[in-house]
Amino acid sequence: MPPDVPALVAALTQGETPRVWSLLVTVFGDLAQGPQARVSGVLLARLTEAMGIKPEAARVALHRLRKDGWIESLREGRRSSYRLTQAGHRETAAASPRIYGVDKPPGEGWLLIHPPAEPAPPGAVAIGPGLALGAAAQGFALPLQAPPPDWLRARVVDAELVALTRTTAVGFAALAVLPALTPLETAALRVLVVHAWRRIALRAPDLPDFLFPEGWQGPACRAAAADLLRRLPRPDLATLEAAAGP
Amino acid sequence: MPPDVPALVAALTQGETPRVWSLLVTVFGDLAQGPQARVSGVLLARLTEAMGIKPEAARVALHRLRKDGWIESLREGRRSSYRLTQAGHRETAAASPRIYGVDKPPGEGWLLIHPPAEPAPPGAVAIGPGLALGAAAQGFALPLQAPPPDWLRARVVDAELVALTRTTAVGFAALAVLPALTPLETAALRVLVVHAWRRIALRAPDLPDFLFPEGWQGPACRAAAADLLRRLPRPDLATLEAAAGP
Repeated sequence: MPPDVPALVAALTQGETPRVWSLLVTVFGDLAQGPQARVSGVLLARLTEAMGIKPEAARVALHRLRKDGWIESLREGRRSSYRLTQAGHRETAAASPRIYGVDKPPGEGWLLIHPPAEPAPPGAVAIGPGLALGAAAQGFALPLQAPPPDWLRARVVDAELVALTRTTAVGFAALAVLPALTPLETAALRVLVVHAWRRIALRAPDLPDFLFPEGWQGPACRAAAADLLRRLPRPDLATLEAAAGP
Repeated sequence: MPPDVPALVAALTQGETPRVWSLLVTVFGDLAQGPQARVSGVLLARLTEAMGIKPEAARVALHRLRKDGWIESLREGRRSSYRLTQAGHRETAAASPRIYGVDKPPGEGWLLIHPPAEPAPPGAVAIGPGLALGAAAQGFALPLQAPPPDWLRARVVDAELVALTRTTAVGFAALAVLPALTPLETAALRVLVVHAWRRIALRAPDLPDFLFPEGWQGPACRAAAADLLRRLPRPDLATLEAAAGP
């Protein structure tokens, strides 16, 4: 028997309560990307409820997102709805390629040598004075084909992010078999998958997998996220609003 | 008209008085390499005289070399002669490959990456923390084909040694045309060539030429030294002793 939706939600959130305002940014970024797209308060309440978030926590997070200029509210008769501000659209659009580029093959690896007194080139990962790793040749650069030694790869990402890829891979694996899902459930799970993957995708440098430290599960997470985004296709907002009710 | 020998000696010594004890090591190392080879005091006096060295300076240097265990003296009737000690033989033999390997093509260049807290691998040239240049792969190494940037090459050798290659190249160029030479003159010039070249060969790291800084004349010195060692063939000691007189 396939697991029920609350069990899948728990697998994706690792039993922790996600930071709600950040999760709401993912809701808007994933489900309401269009410039005119808006999400009703009712639909937001149903989605956050499905993701195991308490109504008070959702309200507090919405308030904070409005105060910080991420979203704005609109009132249509007795219904309130929300949409990303222009700034909110810019921010989510900037992050999109890294989050949704899950099928993009990892880039090349270059060892970049620069004057030790200068900072690492933009976008490169500083390894030590004068030494950085990059996805493209910049300045004096040598192509990398073989994995560098452990101590060097350990500087590419911190141990916390390595651990996050491990727990995320386990969470994604729990969704290997999906039960029949309503559009609302599909949307809730999809947002949680995007959210879990974005925590890795936005923090991991753009480097080929073999440059990451021992234990790095980034490739497994990337593959599972790509698979889940296909198997949990984005429901359109009209369908979701109809399902959420008046 | 070809230049006279004193002018050639001056070209090779740059008008400076060479460090005499070090020059005498070259005399023994070049002319008296065999385990039983010995050089009479008379021949030493004639050779150092031909190299523009004052008799007192030669005597002081001989005394110092004996005291330091480089050479030992032997007495045969009224004649005294000198030869390298076992330690002296070992030292000159160890330096020989670098001095006389003038036709050896320069090695490969590797960028060596090591833990920044550890020293550079043996034989490699430290460039910065965790970064060294070597003639062979050691640990995590990347082959170098293109010249690294100026700041990095400037760390391969100091400016003083770069300047020495320039003046040495000019000195060697002065021997492009040689006059007819006696065996003693040949030996004196040859020893000065070896001595000038060894000051570079023993201090320059074993790296391909393109890793050396702008202005480095090592290749020109190496080529000229190889040419001069062929054109100033080592006279045998018996010939030199006969020429030096009783």
